[in-house]
Formats: sequence, C-alpha cells, structure tokens
Amino acid sequence: MKPILVFQTDFTYAEGAVSSMYGVVKTVDRELEIFDGTHEIPQFDTWSASYRLYQSVRFWPEGTIYVSVVDPGVGTSRRACVAKTKDGYYIVTPDNGSLTHYKKWVGIEAVREIDESVNRLRGKGTEEVAIFHGRDLFGYTAARLASGIIDFEGVGPEYPVEEIVELPILEPTVTEGRAEGIFEIEDPNFGNLWTNIPLKTFKEAGFAYGDMLNVVVRHEGEVVFNEKVLFHQSFGMAKKGEPIIYNNELMKVALAVSQGSFIKKYGINFGPEWTVEFTK
Amino acid sequence: MKPILVFQTDFTYAEGAVSSMYGVVKTVDRELEIFDGTHEIPQFDTWSASYRLYQSVRFWPEGTIYVSVVDPGVGTSRRACVAKTKDGYYIVTPDNGSLTHYKKWVGIEAVREIDESVNRLRGKGTEEVAIFHGRDLFGYTAARLASGIIDFEGVGPEYPVEEIVELPILEPTVTEGRAEGIFEIEDPNFGNLWTNIPLKTFKEAGFAYGDMLNVVVRHEGEVVFNEKVLFHQSFGMAKKGEPIIYNNELMKVALAVSQGSFIKKYGINFGPEWTVEFTK
Amino acid sequence: MKPILVFQTDFTYAEGAVSSMYGVVKTVDRELEIFDGTHEIPQFDTWSASYRLYQSVRFWPEGTIYVSVVDPGVGTSRRACVAKTKDGYYIVTPDNGSLTHYKKWVGIEAVREIDESVNRLRGKGTEEVAIFHGRDLFGYTAARLASGIIDFEGVGPEYPVEEIVELPILEPTVTEGRAEGIFEIEDPNFGNLWTNIPLKTFKEAGFAYGDMLNVVVRHEGEVVFNEKVLFHQSFGMAKKGEPIIYNNELMKVALAVSQGSFIKKYGINFGPEWTVEFTK
Repeated sequence: MKPILVFQTDFTYAEGAVSSMYGVVKTVDRELEIFDGTHEIPQFDTWSASYRLYQSVRFWPEGTIYVSVVDPGVGTSRRACVAKTKDGYYIVTPDNGSLTHYKKWVGIEAVREIDESVNRLRGKGTEEVAIFHGRDLFGYTAARLASGIIDFEGVGPEYPVEEIVELPILEPTVTEGRAEGIFEIEDPNFGNLWTNIPLKTFKEAGFAYGDMLNVVVRHEGEVVFNEKVLFHQSFGMAKKGEPIIYNNELMKVALAVSQGSFIKKYGINFGPEWTVEFTK
Repeated sequence: MKPILVFQTDFTYAEGAVSSMYGVVKTVDRELEIFDGTHEIPQFDTWSASYRLYQSVRFWPEGTIYVSVVDPGVGTSRRACVAKTKDGYYIVTPDNGSLTHYKKWVGIEAVREIDESVNRLRGKGTEEVAIFHGRDLFGYTAARLASGIIDFEGVGPEYPVEEIVELPILEPTVTEGRAEGIFEIEDPNFGNLWTNIPLKTFKEAGFAYGDMLNVVVRHEGEVVFNEKVLFHQSFGMAKKGEPIIYNNELMKVALAVSQGSFIKKYGINFGPEWTVEFTK
Repeated sequence: MKPILVFQTDFTYAEGAVSSMYGVVKTVDRELEIFDGTHEIPQFDTWSASYRLYQSVRFWPEGTIYVSVVDPGVGTSRRACVAKTKDGYYIVTPDNGSLTHYKKWVGIEAVREIDESVNRLRGKGTEEVAIFHGRDLFGYTAARLASGIIDFEGVGPEYPVEEIVELPILEPTVTEGRAEGIFEIEDPNFGNLWTNIPLKTFKEAGFAYGDMLNVVVRHEGEVVFNEKVLFHQSFGMAKKGEPIIYNNELMKVALAVSQGSFIKKYGINFGPEWTVEFTK
C-alpha cells in the first residue's frame, strides 16, 4: 500500500484552501489516503508546528508522509524540504524551525531541498507565480512521493542535516528532590500546560504519585504561582477545580486543573519566559 | 468490508491529539476507514456526548463502530466499555452517562468492560501510565475490534446492561391542545433549541402546520418568553429574524429564528431548568 | 473508480449534523470517498458558498461531485439542483446564488432539479417532513449519483441554465496605470482581502513586482485607507506588520499584512461597498 499523507497547517478549515490542497493530491493519484493532522496551528508559529510533529508523527504507520505548512517566510529564500526521519517517516515542510523537536528528540537521517523546477504544480491557472505553496509545492511534492512518481532522491538535492534550521530548546534541571523546567507547550483545548521535564527523570528525583509538591511558577523571574499541588496519574484524581501535576501523553510532567483550565485559572502561559520549579 | 470507525470527542482539532489517536488506528490496521463525528462536544459534557450519539450513530451503515471520548473521570474507577446496540452498532466509550439516550431510546443489547491488560497500546514511549485513553485505550480497542483482531467477547468481561450509568431524562407532558417539555439540546451553530417533544405526539395533541401557538418558556419556573409563534415545516417559512416552531432532523419539536439565533435573540438555553409550554 | 464527494456547508463541525450526513452517504455505498471542503462558510452566505466553489472545485479530479449546502431558504420554493460544469464536475446545491461564480467564470453545461419523489431518504424516522436537506436530499442524491445508482438524467428534470439564480458580480476597471475593483472575499484566517482584479490585467496596466503603488480604499465612497504599498510576489517580501499587494492563489490581486491581518489592522472588509483603487 502507498504511504498515508497527514497534513498540519495554520490555514484553519474556514475557507477553501485545505480543499484545494487535498484536491491536488487526489488529482496526482486517486489512491492516496489523506488525513487531517490539525489545521489550527497558531499562525506562523513554527515552534508549535515543530512540537505537534513530535507529538503525532510516530503514532502513524512507518513510512507515513507528514506535511507541515506553517510558513511565515513563504516566497522568501527559506528552503522547502523533505526530511527523512531516523524512525522511518518523511516530513515535508519549509525548513524554518519546524523540524526542531524531531531532529533533537528523534533524529533526522537525511534532508533534501524540493526542486521547484520539477516538483511544482503547473496549469490550473497557476502558471505564473501563485504563492500557495501548501497546494502547489508541499502537497504536490508529498503526493508525488507517496504515489511513487518520485523517490526520495527525486525530491531534489540533498543538503547536510546540520544545516536544518533549529529553534533553541531549553533543557530541564533535575536534582534529588528538585526539578526545574519551562512550560514548552499548551493543550489549547483543556488549558493544560506541558513542561519539558520527562516523567522518568522526575520520578528518579524522588517524586511519587500521591505526593503534595511545592510548585513555583515564575514569569521573567517573578513568582506568579506558589502552591502545594497533588502529583498523580490523572486529573480525575483531583477534585473538580483543583490543580494537579500529572504526566501527559508524551510522558512529560504537566499541570492541569481538574475539569477546568490551568491556563485560564492562573493566567499562566507557555514559552521560555515561564519557568516552573517543583520541590518536596 | 471491515466496519467504519467514527470518532466524537471533546478534544477539538486544535492540536495533535486527534492525529495521534487516528495514527494508532491506522497502525493497528491500514485498511480501516476513519471518520470525524465531531471533536467539539462541550468539554466534559457527557449529556451532549450521549445526545450526539443518538443523533448520528444510526445514520451510519450497520456494524459501524462509534467511539466517544468525553471523559471527565479519566483515570478513575469509571468503566471503559464497548456497548452493542439493539440496532446493530458498537459504541466504545467511558461508561459515564454517554450511553443514556441510546439506551433509553434505541436500546443496548450487551455491554463489556475493556480489559486493559489486553486492549491497551504499549510501546511508543507509553509503557508507563500515559493517560491518553482516547489514543491508547478507546481508539486502540475500537481498531482491534474493527480489524477482527478481537471479537466482541475479546473486549473483556460482560456486565449487566442495567449497570450502565444513566443520566436522568425528563419526559414531556402532552395532552389535547397542550404540550410541555424541556429544551434538551441546542444546535450550537444555528442557535436553535430542540425540545424533548416528539412531532408525532405534538400533532396528535392537535397542533398543525400553519398554526400560531402560544409559547411560554420558563427558567426555574420564571417566565422568560411568552409569545405567539408560527408552527411550520421549516424556518424558511418565517420571515428573517422571526421565531418559528419547526420539527428538527430527529422529528422533535424545536424553536428557531429564521436566519438568526433563537438562543442569542432571547437569551434562552437548554437543560432541565428550561421548560417550554405550547398551547393553542 | 467512483467519483469523490466533497462537502461544503455552513453547519460547522460542532454537533452531529455532518456525521449524520456522511453516514447516509456511506449507507448508500460503502465504497464512496468523502472529503471535507469546509463546514465554516458564514451562515446563510450564498456569496461565500459560490466563491469557495470557484476556489476549490477545479483542483479536484475531473468528475468529482461537490456538494454545497448553504441554504437560507430551506423548505421554501427554491430549487434543489445538480449542475454539470463545463470543466467536468458536478455541483449539488440549492439553486440560490451558490452557482454564481462557477457559472460566470467557468461555465455550467446543464442543470437538473432534484426529484424529491425519488432522490430523498426515507426511513430512519425521517418519513415525515424532516428538513435536514443536507442529509436527506443533497447528500443522499450526491451519493446515489456517485455510486451510479442514478445517472445525471436520474437526478430529475432538466431546466434552462439561464434560469440559474445569480448574484450580481461587479467587474473591475483597469486602464493604463490605474486599476479599480472591489474586495470580493476575505481569507478569514490570515486576514487578507482578495480583489476582483486579475493579475494578468493588472500587469498589463503597467504594474510590476517591486513597485510602490498608491492604494486608496473607499467604503461607500469615503476614503478609509490611502497609503503607498509594495507590490510583490509574496507577503514574505514585506517586513512583519507592513501591508503588501500580492497575487493570491487564484491569480487575483490581493492585500495582506505580512504576518498580520490586513482586515484587523485597517478595519476594512469585503463586499460591493468596499472599492479599492491602485495607481502608480
């Protein structure tokens, strides 16, 4: 069977862009299977694009081609690329930081720049310079790759993996009885915040389910949250409206409010300026 | 052909959760077909989850496996189950009230608790206690059932249908020339409110298309709406901005504003505290 | 292979309507492939429905059946129809203006009124007069057509293409060194505004990439924007926060703010009352 195509973008589903993009894929090859990743990446937010790739790609069958179009520099000199990951997937994306987490935490085996002279949709009134790269470049190239019209070499010239654009990633600091990190992403629906601290190192530092922990959150160094919070397996363990420390679906330490929003209740957000410290 | 899988959740499509969940399904079996029900059930709202199942499941081909993940008690002792309905579908869901309408209005033939020792995704870094049950438990079990890896018995131990958790459902009171009920759900997009009064009994009470009816809405007993409203086949029959009584897609009596929102225009909502009375 | 079905509606995905509609399609024929166009057409906005059809349909494989359900007059005497386009697609829609752009800019070869006595879902509790035409009429007819149960003649009686309901379309005025048009649609996500001026005629009027142009926007004749703006190939060419004139994915002249929203920044919207004039 031909590889599945999964798409994530910041287009939303509000107008006809996703439809046109998928139409092009099915025009290249009717047999191809297409899935929505999400089309609600915050606009131009390559950090979130990168994180969502890390969160989702590896749960798909090996060989899946994941297309990510969050592209603030569309039309400029940023490279359009296809990355082959160390765990056996292809990621089609502008090379603008969107590969950061995957490169660091999983690994990129090789990367090629899309050769627009070959892998670009012509006709359909797009002969001139339409800049809908999601439709005419990324989606089109991904479809050709999935269909077998081109192989990985056919994408275009290889370039060194070291040249892939990376955003800075902060590492957590974990010692006996103390863990400090940042909130690196949100769960925008439930209002949870996910830290960069792995559950494994957190437990090795001596924290156990059932503990009440001191949690201090700082925004640009200033304390904005200082409370004792239960650490447990799921937010169902806390009373409705109470905060809880749990481990998220990617086995990192996270903060939630049971049946509520941690983000809204405490006015806390994510990014390198939001640090969080756990002590016994 | 293998059964179709349809998913409804309160996850939204804003981040990578739905994608990971679907990826797991396709990893179990590439052949499986997946559809979105809705991922915008109001958070933790098991009543709406239950109503949407009733609204949608039976329009799918017999044998379809419908997965519903609205799960305020995730990680607690609530059962994870697969219900076999009397009209020939499977519903995979936490047993937390989400089966209320289907059980009462269509019927559940049998129900089994998901045996997590068998039907739970391992590996992919989820060896420990990740609590993404949508991905690792409900979606995974549904995929195994659709694929034929397990049959209904293979889900886990059966338990009595009588033990299924049910939310209270109020019944309408209909007599000659008078019908009283509640607004039991909304159409969140168009701002319509759907009562629990079947069209059939409404007509038997003497109401006919073209009638102008007295409509009284009470909130906790207090009158908040008292107007004469046209009863007709569709909101296209009323002038733009005018209220209308119509029968909805499930053949129940409903209130709308033609090309507007009844909910917004009159500040009325749904739930047991909102009663509505129709008289000639 | 059977034709693909693509759906656009103003239903949103918030409740069970889309799911029921798709379930009916799969019940007619399990083999049919279904895609979401968008379900977020602004409510009752047949102009946007028409524009989105023009934007998206032709990027799908020839023969694709596109279903559009934006239907303020549901239940009234407006026709339900299937149009066969000159470029080889079918569009299933209420005949209420939704075919305007396709008819004018691509062409309709023939149109037939759906015969409800044949092409309407019965049973499933919908024997009486449920008015969910998306599910019971448009989706059902489209599925029967895609499946081959009926051919185009089987839709119902043909009527003259000239009788298709059309919304007024304004034409741009382009002379040497001057172009005037309207904003005819928005990109609701990125906040761009798309004019009705084709890139080709714009360039023929003497405008070239790299030019700084005088742009005057008027609302009902009153000047609301008067600035020099860069015309270039993509919004990546302008500095963040700066406006830019570019050509959109349909090769028309458009206005954007680089990594921002032109609509929000300048309080400008689309429709015949918003004119825009470009001079050197």
